[in-house]
Amino acid sequence: MKLRLALAQVNPTVGDLAGNGALITATVTSAKESGADIVVFPEMIVTGYPVEDLALRPSFQIASKAMITQIAQSITGDIVALVGYLDTSHDGAPQNAVAIIHERQIKARYVKRHLPNYGVFDEFRNFTPGASNLVVRIKGIDVAVAICEDIWHSLAEIAERTPGLVVVPNGSPYERNKDDARLALVHKRARQVGAPLAYVNMSGGQDDLVFDGDTIVVDKNGELIARAPQFEDLVMYVDIECASGTSTPDLVISTEAPSHASELTSTIAPRLGDEAEIWQGLVVGLRDYVKKNGFKSAVVGLSGGIDSALVAAIAIDALGAKNLYGVAMPSKYSSGHSLEDAQALADATRINFRTVSIAPMVDAFMSNLDLTGLAEENLQARVRGTTLMGISNAEGHIVLATGNKSELAVGYSTLYGDAVGGFAPIKDIYKSDVWALARWRNSMALKAGLTPPIPERSITKEPSAELRPDQKDTDSLPDYALLDQVLRLYVDEDHGYEALIKDGFDPALIIRVIGMVDRAEYKRRQYPPGTKVSSRAFGKDRRLPMTSHWSQS
Amino acid sequence: MKLRLALAQVNPTVGDLAGNGALITATVTSAKESGADIVVFPEMIVTGYPVEDLALRPSFQIASKAMITQIAQSITGDIVALVGYLDTSHDGAPQNAVAIIHERQIKARYVKRHLPNYGVFDEFRNFTPGASNLVVRIKGIDVAVAICEDIWHSLAEIAERTPGLVVVPNGSPYERNKDDARLALVHKRARQVGAPLAYVNMSGGQDDLVFDGDTIVVDKNGELIARAPQFEDLVMYVDIECASGTSTPDLVISTEAPSHASELTSTIAPRLGDEAEIWQGLVVGLRDYVKKNGFKSAVVGLSGGIDSALVAAIAIDALGAKNLYGVAMPSKYSSGHSLEDAQALADATRINFRTVSIAPMVDAFMSNLDLTGLAEENLQARVRGTTLMGISNAEGHIVLATGNKSELAVGYSTLYGDAVGGFAPIKDIYKSDVWALARWRNSMALKAGLTPPIPERSITKEPSAELRPDQKDTDSLPDYALLDQVLRLYVDEDHGYEALIKDGFDPALIIRVIGMVDRAEYKRRQYPPGTKVSSRAFGKDRRLPMTSHWSQS
Repeated sequence: MKLRLALAQVNPTVGDLAGNGALITATVTSAKESGADIVVFPEMIVTGYPVEDLALRPSFQIASKAMITQIAQSITGDIVALVGYLDTSHDGAPQNAVAIIHERQIKARYVKRHLPNYGVFDEFRNFTPGASNLVVRIKGIDVAVAICEDIWHSLAEIAERTPGLVVVPNGSPYERNKDDARLALVHKRARQVGAPLAYVNMSGGQDDLVFDGDTIVVDKNGELIARAPQFEDLVMYVDIECASGTSTPDLVISTEAPSHASELTSTIAPRLGDEAEIWQGLVVGLRDYVKKNGFKSAVVGLSGGIDSALVAAIAIDALGAKNLYGVAMPSKYSSGHSLEDAQALADATRINFRTVSIAPMVDAFMSNLDLTGLAEENLQARVRGTTLMGISNAEGHIVLATGNKSELAVGYSTLYGDAVGGFAPIKDIYKSDVWALARWRNSMALKAGLTPPIPERSITKEPSAELRPDQKDTDSLPDYALLDQVLRLYVDEDHGYEALIKDGFDPALIIRVIGMVDRAEYKRRQYPPGTKVSSRAFGKDRRLPMTSHWSQS
Repeated sequence: MKLRLALAQVNPTVGDLAGNGALITATVTSAKESGADIVVFPEMIVTGYPVEDLALRPSFQIASKAMITQIAQSITGDIVALVGYLDTSHDGAPQNAVAIIHERQIKARYVKRHLPNYGVFDEFRNFTPGASNLVVRIKGIDVAVAICEDIWHSLAEIAERTPGLVVVPNGSPYERNKDDARLALVHKRARQVGAPLAYVNMSGGQDDLVFDGDTIVVDKNGELIARAPQFEDLVMYVDIECASGTSTPDLVISTEAPSHASELTSTIAPRLGDEAEIWQGLVVGLRDYVKKNGFKSAVVGLSGGIDSALVAAIAIDALGAKNLYGVAMPSKYSSGHSLEDAQALADATRINFRTVSIAPMVDAFMSNLDLTGLAEENLQARVRGTTLMGISNAEGHIVLATGNKSELAVGYSTLYGDAVGGFAPIKDIYKSDVWALARWRNSMALKAGLTPPIPERSITKEPSAELRPDQKDTDSLPDYALLDQVLRLYVDEDHGYEALIKDGFDPALIIRVIGMVDRAEYKRRQYPPGTKVSSRAFGKDRRLPMTSHWSQS
């Protein structure tokens, strides 16, 4: 039999139970109008995801349960809705659950059995796992439910129950190349169960995380039938052939057989290229942090360098040029091209732009404090930080920090200086990728017949913090191409000293780089949040002591 | 038989395997000289604790295992040492383990079975639990081992093995009133097993945590025999009567019977009072963060108010007056008594003291940026922050942030202004307790015939940020006595709106306060670390989304 699925790749807001509830009921209504038999929402759609320790609050648990009841009461007619929410067990422990709703009633619920407790996830802390699987007969088809991490474990128990369809609500954050892993996994699990599988993931940003959707449907052989475009908020409709129920379901709901006036043609949206995918992640991550936190505009310091230019380009795509405020803050150490390149970006993109010379403020500090060397360098960065925060406070823009992952890794930034900001869009992008993304974004503009946003000279010139005369990043750091190779292995892959030696790096270089990374932990702790795009971002992915004498050399 | 125990309430440093190894071997040597039969170290003493994600690194695992082998080789003679370290399971998973060492060999190992994964703990993330208990016969006595969280669960399995002694290495962070809970627990477990129990905890600070020691020995009836003074680094020796082994131990080591020339008298150190205990926690937490991170001195902005005065008093006790640098930074809104009170503190305590007027720097910003209202208020705080950081960079002192828990809770602070710092000593102290601790510390000085460190007027005057004319904290906040009542229930106890109504608070007050707390999450994320003394400190204890529309009103 052909079942029509509505797979809701939608964008909730954490804590906005009323708003998420409205999103759910509106989606159910349109799914019903489109003739869907079943509508499936992402994991914890009622509460948003992840809710972290809100899951532990009795008041929040009560509100989630009240909202799922209210949502259920609004769902009428022949459609069955699978809606993720926060529930509690009989003894009051929080659970990551899905309600199966039909005709104003919660007919059954499934509780996530496998809880991720690695990387950014703390689900052993926040939830108690479920102990049983669930198969419900819907319109004659036995439908099994699994939630996210459940399918990273064997579905043998579900396979034994020979369902005609497996549906999997997810809250699976974007990581570079994760879509390949997901498709392979979905393929494997469909084959294991011998039934089609519908994988539904949320879209949108939540603090450091961005959800890319990437909703997938495969047939019982694991062959791809439908796939949603990444990072878009939409409902994907799929007509899928499912075997009639032959086993013993836990319950039977909606006995009416599926019938649809006309069959839908499934579409398999093409995957984005590597740069395009990361770009969209950064754009959506920034857009949703800004929007969901009540800001309409952002301010960024434009040094004429590549990092701030890239952040501006992302912010323009996220918020619109008219909502971005660029500020050039030249000092006596700024080279002529710095201001020119900042101005060139503003001209090319038509963002709001102003210049504030930091000399009077720096001079006032220098006349009253005895600062030289690094103290003087940091002072300039902090005067810029205070300037941006002043503009932010006066005009209501969120400040964007421009540090990249290479800088964060080695601590090449000034606390309360260039590190100020409400959000740091490129904190998980190594410098090598900063250049690659800049080139890619400019080439996209050229292909579309538009003006590239990033001045060519910002991409090609040698990186400099310009905090002292003729300073270059290479005065303090290895060449970025080499540095980033070591960092990718040390930070993202946990290669220690011995492993890095085997990787072929020079012992002195290894000692220098990992020493810098280890000593900079305290700076990273005070850094603003920013979108995770790698499998090991700084933050919840990588929890290390600040006080540590660990070194391998 | 009487067994002599050496219980090492010592202070390791995370990651300093060589240093911790040296501490262990030196302690074993002196324990041997003191005739101890068994020496017991705290949990993970080889690596320090908690090591967080260092536990997941192959290089760190290898180093820990190499160090325990090296330590074992240094241990000779008749003493048996129980030494906590990071081990790995057969399949390479990290384990929180104790090695039982005798005559240069690791004779047995015990792996922690119950892993805490709440509050500040992430042990499901970082360790794989052990699956079996361990009883070793040492000098004829069957000794069972449990680690920390293990004794928060039933010891029924151990009781069945009828050991003559239970030893429990711990890494148990200080929390207010936790010593009462520990003694009750130790009492209960000794009675359950029917054997004496020796509870050994570490001392010293590690990032946000401070370990108070509080090493405890009870007899088989749970009666207290010995207890170490809190927050001190020491080895406590106890002669304890244990029944001879009658069951089947996992192995037998050191068959020689215990014999001691003269019996020791156990001492039960008195508990500190509430204020004294918190004070010691704050002093040791600050001292060790500063020391273990390579600083010798600290700088603090002195406003003449109570928060900065209290931080100065703690820092003096932690680092010595000669290592503290106070800076008064008056503005045009500072009242006359501000500078007088800062000066009075400096005079009373003989810390280093200087005055830097912020007017020239503030004027420079004001002439170049259009700032009024809150933007102007924040500017003053940020000029002060930049001034302190400049002095820090130039002179090498760590900056101490002076925010208290009430301010952090409601966001009554300026990011990159008064929030700058490497450490925030009183971030877990509500304003009401700030006053109480100040009065207590002054009274201690008077009792000792010394000059009270904190000027009386700093304690008695009305709190003001002095960022605009005639500003008072009560312009923006409820009275602290009332505010702190709501905060203690909302932050520390998760009382939601309904619960707070039942607690008897005004609905408008509740809505106002919890709204402020929720909106300030982004500020807390960028705040410096500081010593946890409550059961719910901001930080790892309380993990909440920054982006959240959750509100109950």
